[in-house]
Amino acid sequence: MPALRIALAQVNPCVGDIAGNAALVRDHAHAAAAAGAALVVFPEMVITGYPIEDLALRASFQRAAARAVDTLASDLEADGLGDLTVMVGTLGVAQSGRPFNQAAALRGGQVIAHYNKHHLPNYGVFDERRIFASGEDPCVVEVGGRRIGVVICEDIWVDGGPVEQVASANLDLLAVLNGSPFEEGKGRVRTDLARRRASEVGAPLAYVNLWGGQDDLVFDGHSFIVGADGAWLANAPGFDDALLVWDLPEADAPATQGEVVDFASDDQQVYLACVTGLRDYVLKNGFSSVILGLSGGIDSALTAAIAADALGGANVVGVSMPSSFSSEHSKDDAADLAKRIGADYRVEPIAAIVDAFQGQLALEGVAEENLQARVRGVILMGISNREGHLVIAPGNKSELATGYATIYDAGSIGGYAPLKDLDKTRVWDLARWRNAYATTHGEVEPIPVNSIEKPPSAELRPGQVDQDSLPPYDLLDEVLDAYVEHAEGRAELLARGFDEAVVDRVLQLVDRAEWKRRQYPPGPKVTALAFGRDRRLPITSRWRELS
Amino acid sequence: MPALRIALAQVNPCVGDIAGNAALVRDHAHAAAAAGAALVVFPEMVITGYPIEDLALRASFQRAAARAVDTLASDLEADGLGDLTVMVGTLGVAQSGRPFNQAAALRGGQVIAHYNKHHLPNYGVFDERRIFASGEDPCVVEVGGRRIGVVICEDIWVDGGPVEQVASANLDLLAVLNGSPFEEGKGRVRTDLARRRASEVGAPLAYVNLWGGQDDLVFDGHSFIVGADGAWLANAPGFDDALLVWDLPEADAPATQGEVVDFASDDQQVYLACVTGLRDYVLKNGFSSVILGLSGGIDSALTAAIAADALGGANVVGVSMPSSFSSEHSKDDAADLAKRIGADYRVEPIAAIVDAFQGQLALEGVAEENLQARVRGVILMGISNREGHLVIAPGNKSELATGYATIYDAGSIGGYAPLKDLDKTRVWDLARWRNAYATTHGEVEPIPVNSIEKPPSAELRPGQVDQDSLPPYDLLDEVLDAYVEHAEGRAELLARGFDEAVVDRVLQLVDRAEWKRRQYPPGPKVTALAFGRDRRLPITSRWRELS
Repeated sequence: MPALRIALAQVNPCVGDIAGNAALVRDHAHAAAAAGAALVVFPEMVITGYPIEDLALRASFQRAAARAVDTLASDLEADGLGDLTVMVGTLGVAQSGRPFNQAAALRGGQVIAHYNKHHLPNYGVFDERRIFASGEDPCVVEVGGRRIGVVICEDIWVDGGPVEQVASANLDLLAVLNGSPFEEGKGRVRTDLARRRASEVGAPLAYVNLWGGQDDLVFDGHSFIVGADGAWLANAPGFDDALLVWDLPEADAPATQGEVVDFASDDQQVYLACVTGLRDYVLKNGFSSVILGLSGGIDSALTAAIAADALGGANVVGVSMPSSFSSEHSKDDAADLAKRIGADYRVEPIAAIVDAFQGQLALEGVAEENLQARVRGVILMGISNREGHLVIAPGNKSELATGYATIYDAGSIGGYAPLKDLDKTRVWDLARWRNAYATTHGEVEPIPVNSIEKPPSAELRPGQVDQDSLPPYDLLDEVLDAYVEHAEGRAELLARGFDEAVVDRVLQLVDRAEWKRRQYPPGPKVTALAFGRDRRLPITSRWRELS
Repeated sequence: MPALRIALAQVNPCVGDIAGNAALVRDHAHAAAAAGAALVVFPEMVITGYPIEDLALRASFQRAAARAVDTLASDLEADGLGDLTVMVGTLGVAQSGRPFNQAAALRGGQVIAHYNKHHLPNYGVFDERRIFASGEDPCVVEVGGRRIGVVICEDIWVDGGPVEQVASANLDLLAVLNGSPFEEGKGRVRTDLARRRASEVGAPLAYVNLWGGQDDLVFDGHSFIVGADGAWLANAPGFDDALLVWDLPEADAPATQGEVVDFASDDQQVYLACVTGLRDYVLKNGFSSVILGLSGGIDSALTAAIAADALGGANVVGVSMPSSFSSEHSKDDAADLAKRIGADYRVEPIAAIVDAFQGQLALEGVAEENLQARVRGVILMGISNREGHLVIAPGNKSELATGYATIYDAGSIGGYAPLKDLDKTRVWDLARWRNAYATTHGEVEPIPVNSIEKPPSAELRPGQVDQDSLPPYDLLDEVLDAYVEHAEGRAELLARGFDEAVVDRVLQLVDRAEWKRRQYPPGPKVTALAFGRDRRLPITSRWRELS
């Protein structure tokens, strides 16, 4: 059997944009053909975008997806690409009316084969048993006389199943269509797993993944090909379009080494995930600019830097909203940041407005602090309504976990929260990483060193710092990591040597803040367990970890 | 075989309050024994509360539930109730560590049998395949020589399965433990289904359901017993504690007629669901009073009436926040309502505060309208922070569907939204029903007739009425019912004869408002499809129903 050139098309579709996604496939099919490929493989559900949630259950949506695949097959044929085999992920429908998460192989103007995903993830962020029926049959497509097995994403995460079904099918290649969301460190897990599956089928494995942001998920791409012996044969970069072309060698010939690129550092990957999540939320929803409050602190500084990297500094409106408790350094640091990233900088003092509220309400203590914070939220929403910028929320995961934030303030309102899944220590890490990256590349550091180094404070009363109310962030974040991300109980935390009073305080804060988290905007998941649909807990609950 | 007295304990547990729920079971077991019962059946997951979501996956929670059941068995024995068979729903754990939705039968100080739910609902508001493993075995418990089959909730909604397993087991009774959330009209579906299952097993069926509010669900109770021939043998009222006692007759003797109560009207049931949902959210979360803005309009009036029925008028703080656009009748109607329900009434004009914002921002048009609305939100949050009342949001389902509301205003902030699942026409219906109920019972009508009869207006600019921006509510609500609740597509709506321009306008509004709905407080589900976890759609979506 002769060698076969294949291409993996790592693309960024948009959920629901069926016509646009089909056009994206058509464009990349042309590119693959131009590169001499006989087979081009696209990611999971590229035709519909992913995840489509309950759209999968709508008859009108199902019809539109089916029509788009048929039209795409005809269009490719009409384009003179009838000999190219194009493998796409889409929404299929069973006779019974139940939808499938489906891969379809198009050639010669027709769908020549399809495969329905067997294993439907129904944990973490996934609800696939809610919307899809399970497939049962394996799928092998012949291309140029070579035998290509096809499976979808979760199918390779389960022992047995369709990989085992095709293990003795004498495959030349196993193609895996994926919509695998980013989380830090997941790339290593994926590639280890892929090597194991390649060995099981005795053939190279081609892993093609979506990239781009979709609400609270970011798909990182990082498509790759590994050999049956585990050799790293080719890979695409993360967080970008790519067409990865590779030659499947003649039968029994040694594997060909294709193009290999280095992985970015974990810090860079997490940063790029935040940039991608924000940019796609903004652009796919029809906005072009964002607005946020700049306090001079680290959270708003990092958020603004991410926004500038996502959209360009000129599309970031930063508003300093000083009160009588705001320090000079806060105002200076906010202005400095805006200048560094080239933001549209404004100053809106809040004293006169707060005075007007207080003339009627005479609030004191925390109520007075919250009032100041909410006045800032109203100002941002007002400018947003006037000028059309999307409001973004700079709150971080430590705040969201403990409820240490005023609901409806400038830190928690808006459409998207880029730092939502970054705890405070990670926020500092990424700020330092971003500045170091700038230095390395001969650019201006976007984040004022002051914002990184000063003690964090909400500046809602004189001399206030976060550590008046919370344990030191390095300790807090360790406890949160164990309790939230690893779902350890109180007993396990105490056994690890954490102080009992700290543990009880943190657990109580986390449990009581669920109602605030429910009203928080979406933000990109970058850890193994993000707040939101990854961690579903009742608001009303008297459960307390006390034994 | 002699007759056997059984009791169904319709109780209102609290999620996570394992000790409290076990005490509730113990109390009702005493009452059942005092009434001469040999068997008392409690609802699904009464020990843990329901639904517990991801708490089911926590080892510490699993251990606590297991300990509670063992302790309960010993306590009942120690109390002298060792002869009583007590059937409770709880969280079980398999050898593999996977949790079960379990029924346990306690007698003589021990667990004598258990049953693991077979069919795990994973649609609508349910995520049970996420958190539970499926049971496979049937369960028959002997009590006083009689054979009692046990299944849980969804098990009877599926043909075949455990009911078929025990159909030939010569049962004397089928006990069904339920956590079945309320929706309008569901009672009739349940009872028809139960009659069919009773006929299949050839024995009476005893259906015991939870009651009470849990975040966005309300359980309505309405426990009942039907005969193998479909006879209606006994039933408990909805939305209240009940111990339904009934005698299972001697073998081959005719079925005994027990206590039967009338069902409330659909209007009354929906109203009671809203009252129950609000009351339990407030009390189970440790609040005792609520605060809301009173505009003189129908939404805030009905919300306040519900709150007064839930908590007593003295625990309702109503704040009139007139602007320069507020009509005299609005202020009068708000004051009249507060007087009728005995609320703590306050007036906080917003003009001076809006002026302070406008002195800086000079907003116009919709941005200016939104500003006024948000100032009211900040005032309510301020008073809430000062005095500890839970803020409640009076927004209705038509608003939430179309996004015809200012995000973060007094209609959409807070902890709970009692009208969240009532469209505007249903809001009027229920207001009229509540006043008529008052008249029938010789009480003061809570809702001013003016608030019911005047054209709805946000009063954010001179002469504004809702119908400037929206189709007439009766038409709008019909389209929403078809598109949202019945998930019909555009083609189906046009085929039904709706005007194309209206359909396109409404669908666009609904699709674009998803981001606002995500940040809305929870409220009681009372229809077949509520916003929230019942209807999961992406925010970022270019899908438009256009063909």
